[in-house]
Amino acid sequence: MPLRDARTGLVLLDREECLEHLARHSVGRLAVVEGDHPMVFPVNYVMAGDEVVFRTAAGSKLTAALRAPVALEIDDLDETSRSGWSVVVKGWAEEITDQHGAAVQALRELPLDPWATSEKPHWLRIVPRAITGRRL
Amino acid sequence: MPLRDARTGLVLLDREECLEHLARHSVGRLAVVEGDHPMVFPVNYVMAGDEVVFRTAAGSKLTAALRAPVALEIDDLDETSRSGWSVVVKGWAEEITDQHGAAVQALRELPLDPWATSEKPHWLRIVPRAITGRRL
Repeated sequence: MPLRDARTGLVLLDREECLEHLARHSVGRLAVVEGDHPMVFPVNYVMAGDEVVFRTAAGSKLTAALRAPVALEIDDLDETSRSGWSVVVKGWAEEITDQHGAAVQALRELPLDPWATSEKPHWLRIVPRAITGRRL
Repeated sequence: MPLRDARTGLVLLDREECLEHLARHSVGRLAVVEGDHPMVFPVNYVMAGDEVVFRTAAGSKLTAALRAPVALEIDDLDETSRSGWSVVVKGWAEEITDQHGAAVQALRELPLDPWATSEKPHWLRIVPRAITGRRL
């Protein structure tokens, strides 16, 4: 019997399935809080273990905060068959600085290539608090 | 010359283009704030003018709040050509009650059919504060 969410009845994915989906994809939607308001936008990301790594431009709210609460969502939804899945990583985004030494070097070699052409010199990682997924 | 975002350099979509994309799609990602943390999940929606209408289960944070700040994002991203667009509706979600009379009747007849099989008796609308879009 698969695990189901008590409130919605949706089948839950286990952590391993969630991490497999995350590793196979490279575009997600990042939700942040600006003021008291949520905002969401697409980002390219790569996984480094169970951490999500992405780049952002200077001046974003994320680089200003020491640890900004964020959620990254990925999904694969088929509007015709009305089926699919979604995975969410909730955690805190923090900038990866040179203090991280060797870790930063390894991350710089990851295939992270933002689509937008603007400068995105800041590398951030999401330190996960919860990784959850569900089948729709 | 298309308008560009000063910080990211991305081409901005005008309001009409955003509303056209919103009308042509039916699945978006809804970002909400739970505690101080953002959360994001897929929802089915329909448009009613410039308002986004969707359903939710009992017990959600959204039905508890009189006016909950939310953002709905839709996009169409091609990982191969690395191009696409995204549109975001920022605003306040509020439950549609019978006090709305004729408006509720009209909304009930909209083709809104959540994929998840659980009961979702609550109808909400997003009263938009900003509708923005960008080309990636």
